[in-house]
Amino acid sequence: MKYVTYADTPTRARIGYLDDGEVVDVGFEGDMVAFIEAGAPHGQTRKAGEVGAVRLLAPLRPRTIRDFLAFEGHLINAFAGLGKEIPSEWYSVPAHYKGLPDTVIGPDEEIPWPSYTEKLDHELELAAIIGRPGRGITEAQALDHVFGYTIWNDMSARDVQTRELPVGMGPCKAKDWDGSNILGPCIVTADELDPHDVDLEVRINGERWGGTNTKDMHHTFEAMIAYTSQDLTLRAGEVLGSGTATGGSGLELDRWVQPGDLIEMEASGIGILRNRVGQRPT
Amino acid sequence: MKYVTYADTPTRARIGYLDDGEVVDVGFEGDMVAFIEAGAPHGQTRKAGEVGAVRLLAPLRPRTIRDFLAFEGHLINAFAGLGKEIPSEWYSVPAHYKGLPDTVIGPDEEIPWPSYTEKLDHELELAAIIGRPGRGITEAQALDHVFGYTIWNDMSARDVQTRELPVGMGPCKAKDWDGSNILGPCIVTADELDPHDVDLEVRINGERWGGTNTKDMHHTFEAMIAYTSQDLTLRAGEVLGSGTATGGSGLELDRWVQPGDLIEMEASGIGILRNRVGQRPT
Repeated sequence: MKYVTYADTPTRARIGYLDDGEVVDVGFEGDMVAFIEAGAPHGQTRKAGEVGAVRLLAPLRPRTIRDFLAFEGHLINAFAGLGKEIPSEWYSVPAHYKGLPDTVIGPDEEIPWPSYTEKLDHELELAAIIGRPGRGITEAQALDHVFGYTIWNDMSARDVQTRELPVGMGPCKAKDWDGSNILGPCIVTADELDPHDVDLEVRINGERWGGTNTKDMHHTFEAMIAYTSQDLTLRAGEVLGSGTATGGSGLELDRWVQPGDLIEMEASGIGILRNRVGQRPT
Repeated sequence: MKYVTYADTPTRARIGYLDDGEVVDVGFEGDMVAFIEAGAPHGQTRKAGEVGAVRLLAPLRPRTIRDFLAFEGHLINAFAGLGKEIPSEWYSVPAHYKGLPDTVIGPDEEIPWPSYTEKLDHELELAAIIGRPGRGITEAQALDHVFGYTIWNDMSARDVQTRELPVGMGPCKAKDWDGSNILGPCIVTADELDPHDVDLEVRINGERWGGTNTKDMHHTFEAMIAYTSQDLTLRAGEVLGSGTATGGSGLELDRWVQPGDLIEMEASGIGILRNRVGQRPT
C-alpha cells in the first residue's frame, strides 16, 4: 500500500492511498502519525481525485527525525576532496544527528534557498518510518517495527556545515531552515518493499547525477533501529534516514544546484520525489 | 510567576503555579506547550495542594530541544584531560545538537542508568523556553521571544560519547535514552529572571562539585536565538539549553556519580532540581 497525505482544499490535510494514479481517501480523522499509531485503519473509503487534481503533501510530520550515515561510498567521495579519512569509529557506530520535524515539506513544493548559504546541496536518502513501538529491539526483530519507507531529500548548506562540524556537535544551521527537509511522495508499507534492494537515483534537470542500490549500505536499517532503541522507546512516526546514498549529493562531484533547478529523486518501489530549487533571497 | 506541571492523581497532569510552597491550579485544559501557545491564560484558579502532597512533573514535553555549548570554562576543563584544544570555530558559531523531547523526565524522578555505559555523568544547564514564535529574530529582540527559564540536567554517557563524536554527527546514544534529560522544577517567566546573572551550582550528596554564573556565557541566549532562527521559525515550547556550566559536569573533575547518588542542581531565582541516580541494570 502507498499511503499519502493530501490536500483537497487549501487547508485540509487528509490521509489516502494511491490507486493507479488516483488518491483514495481512507476515511480517517487525524494526521499520518495518528493513523500509524491507530494501526492504519480504513473507514469509509472514497475516491478523492487524481494526483495533480489533489495535491500531495509531506506524508507525515515526523515525531522525530534522525539521519544516519550508512553509505561508505558517499563518505569516500565526500572526504576525497577534503583530504580526510573516514574515522575508524564510523565502521562500528551507526552515528546520526537529529533533525527538526517542523522543517519538513512535501512533493512539488519549492525548496527555499536559505539567505545564509552560497553552497546549497541535496542529499538522496531512503527513510524508514517506525510503526510498532519498541525498546531494546534486536536486529532480527527490527523490520517488524517499520511501518513503511519514503524518500528523503535532506538539503544541506555546505559552507555552513564546514564552519559547524569542527565544533563537534553535528550539523545545525547547515540542515535547519524552514523547508530544508523534503519527504515523499508516499509511504510504501513495509510488506511491499525490501529495504536491502532499492535502487536510488538523483536527477538534476533530467540528468542523472548519481545513485546506488541500498545493498551498499554498511549500516542497515536493522542495525540503526537496534542501536537507537537501546534503553530508549521508539514510537510510531519516528523517521530514520539512511544518510546520503553514494553519489546522492553534489558535494561528491563538486557540482552544485542552482536556483530554478529541478531535483528528482527516484527510489524503486516508491516513486519520484520532485522539487524545484527556489530563488536566492535578495 | 513560577509555572509547573503537576499530578494530583497518578495519571492526570495539570498546569499550576507555585505560591509559597503551594501549587495553585491555573484552570487550563491542556499541556504546558498549549498553555504557552495560548498566552498563559488563567481560568478558574484553585489551590491544588502543597508541593510534596502533589507531585511536580517535568514542566513541559518540549516541542524541540537544542543543546548549545556556551561556557568556555566547561570546554577548557573538559578538553584539558583529553589534550585537545577548543576549535577556533567555537568562538564564532553557537553550535548545538538536538535532543529527543520524549526522553524528558522531571523533578524527583529516578534517573535511569543506561545498560550500555560505565561512565554516567550529569550536566548543569540553564534552559530558555520559547513563547512568542518568530523567524529571523535579532539579538535585540531575542529575549522578547522567551516565555521563561528552567534548569536542565543533561545526563551523558561519556564512554559512548568518546566513540560517537569522532564520526562528526554529534552525540547520539551518549545523550539519548528514556529519562536522559531532566527539566524542572518549574518555569520562571522571563519577566522575573535576568538570564545574564543566574548563579548555577551542582551538588552531589550535598557536596558542591561545581558551578558558575551565567555572566560567563560566551554565547548568550540572544545569540543562540538569533542564530537558530535564521530562515527558521521558532515556535512556542522549543527549548534552548546553555550547554554545561563551568564546573557543571563530573567530566571536568574526573569524578563520577554512582548509583544511589543524589544530584541537586540549583539556579538562583528558579529553585532546585533534585534527582537520584538509579541502579545499574543487572
